[in-house]
Amino acid sequence: MASRRQYGEIPGYPEGSEFASRTELSRAGVHRPLQGGISGAKDGADSIVVSGGYPDDEDFGDEIIYTGQGGRNPATGRQVADQKLERGNIGLVRSELDSRPVRVVRGARGNVNFSPERGLRYDGLFVVTEHWHERGRDGYRIWRFRLVKLADARLASTRAVPTDTRRANVVSARIVRDRSAVQQVKEWYDFTCQVCGLRLMTAGGPYAEGAHIRALGRPHNGPDHVSNMLCLCPNHHVLFDTGAIYVDEGGRVVDSLTGEIVSRLHTVDGHGVRPEYLRYHREHTSSTP
Amino acid sequence: MASRRQYGEIPGYPEGSEFASRTELSRAGVHRPLQGGISGAKDGADSIVVSGGYPDDEDFGDEIIYTGQGGRNPATGRQVADQKLERGNIGLVRSELDSRPVRVVRGARGNVNFSPERGLRYDGLFVVTEHWHERGRDGYRIWRFRLVKLADARLASTRAVPTDTRRANVVSARIVRDRSAVQQVKEWYDFTCQVCGLRLMTAGGPYAEGAHIRALGRPHNGPDHVSNMLCLCPNHHVLFDTGAIYVDEGGRVVDSLTGEIVSRLHTVDGHGVRPEYLRYHREHTSSTP
Repeated sequence: MASRRQYGEIPGYPEGSEFASRTELSRAGVHRPLQGGISGAKDGADSIVVSGGYPDDEDFGDEIIYTGQGGRNPATGRQVADQKLERGNIGLVRSELDSRPVRVVRGARGNVNFSPERGLRYDGLFVVTEHWHERGRDGYRIWRFRLVKLADARLASTRAVPTDTRRANVVSARIVRDRSAVQQVKEWYDFTCQVCGLRLMTAGGPYAEGAHIRALGRPHNGPDHVSNMLCLCPNHHVLFDTGAIYVDEGGRVVDSLTGEIVSRLHTVDGHGVRPEYLRYHREHTSSTP
Repeated sequence: MASRRQYGEIPGYPEGSEFASRTELSRAGVHRPLQGGISGAKDGADSIVVSGGYPDDEDFGDEIIYTGQGGRNPATGRQVADQKLERGNIGLVRSELDSRPVRVVRGARGNVNFSPERGLRYDGLFVVTEHWHERGRDGYRIWRFRLVKLADARLASTRAVPTDTRRANVVSARIVRDRSAVQQVKEWYDFTCQVCGLRLMTAGGPYAEGAHIRALGRPHNGPDHVSNMLCLCPNHHVLFDTGAIYVDEGGRVVDSLTGEIVSRLHTVDGHGVRPEYLRYHREHTSSTP
């Protein structure tokens, strides 16, 4: 099944290609479903259509905050139930985990600054860099995905995409963030993971990562401050960022999928992790309520 | 000690600033040592000078392959002993582990395409993305560091920056990799780490990383093929890439620092990991001979 899905650019349809209808778009293989906004399932998602159908979508051009599918009354267009992490939604998460490119197609009803005047237009390859959930305008849970455009689409044909974007993101983000705060937190714990106590040792010294609790950037706007950071090993950084683990009110680390207690978050005096950031992470990132 | 070292741009000395001498450069705080090429120690490295002093240095403009310090006869300029992972060398590794920016200063005797005609010039912020060792022209071990220029130096000041513009830079200028090969390897092992057997589970499914054994890109030129890849958890990916673990001829995973056997590399029929790539990794990446 995974082998049938075609990732990356479709030969013959470079960025900017226009399509009169969803039928034409589907026949070209640029976005196969005739109705759904996401072409995806458990094995991954290869394309989306941004058409203004979801009032919660936000289009910034090279960055899109995209709403998942489901829970919607097709007649009124309103949310009438929570969205679930299934079908196209889980497909986008899978593509994020595997750093696969997603073709983005814009329809005429989207943001006027970036959308075609009529029909549909293939607007290049994006990567999913983050997912979370929140209450949408109608009060129900919606899943949200941040998609960021790849700088050079030609580099990302079907078979080739820039290096593991997940890791690249982590590294680059670390560079541009407040290094002194990150460094402070790592030194407080002597590069030991606050979840599992592991201290990765290399010839250059110990290695750990500074993880933000409430994510930086819109719409989360978590602060770049030690009270919003944890010192984690790379494995627990992935699990924390994807919401597979969270910290409960009692400071216990919980497995979101099984509800089991994994460990107790180790903290040192003076770190001052703010409970409200941990709550934000629980409420928006972990996959269970 | 770490707090005295100043990372990132020095106020008043933007990229392109010129200096008549090492004394002037040192007084400005752009590169403090009057002689050494690396300003660094165990806590990290904040600047280097690329001056053509080492015949093994390679300057490609936005990418520099830089030779470590030590083992050199100052009179003849030749290597007379192996370089060790100490002083400035370990500083550059530390900055790589912590993703700290390194100021690059070029001197007049470097590559003619990128060096100033006279004196010294501050050429912006770079990050160390990789380190390894090899035999230099004189037959002794030299440590080598790949430094890649940050796309926008202003993003890497020592202070926090807004996150909005950050992620767009992230995905550019990376080595193009074959996602289908990575995906194949991950699926063979069902996202289970070949070193420790861990399978990280998230709501979107399991997560693992495809690690190249012999690195891609110059000068390693490892192939982007399944025979040169492992399926690893993020922790073992870090340990493998930094040479903290290696796979010996018998397929055992060894801790480079202690010499202890960590585990046995799990492999499935048909994967066909090439022993020569594992040997290349042992000989160039692991920190012990």
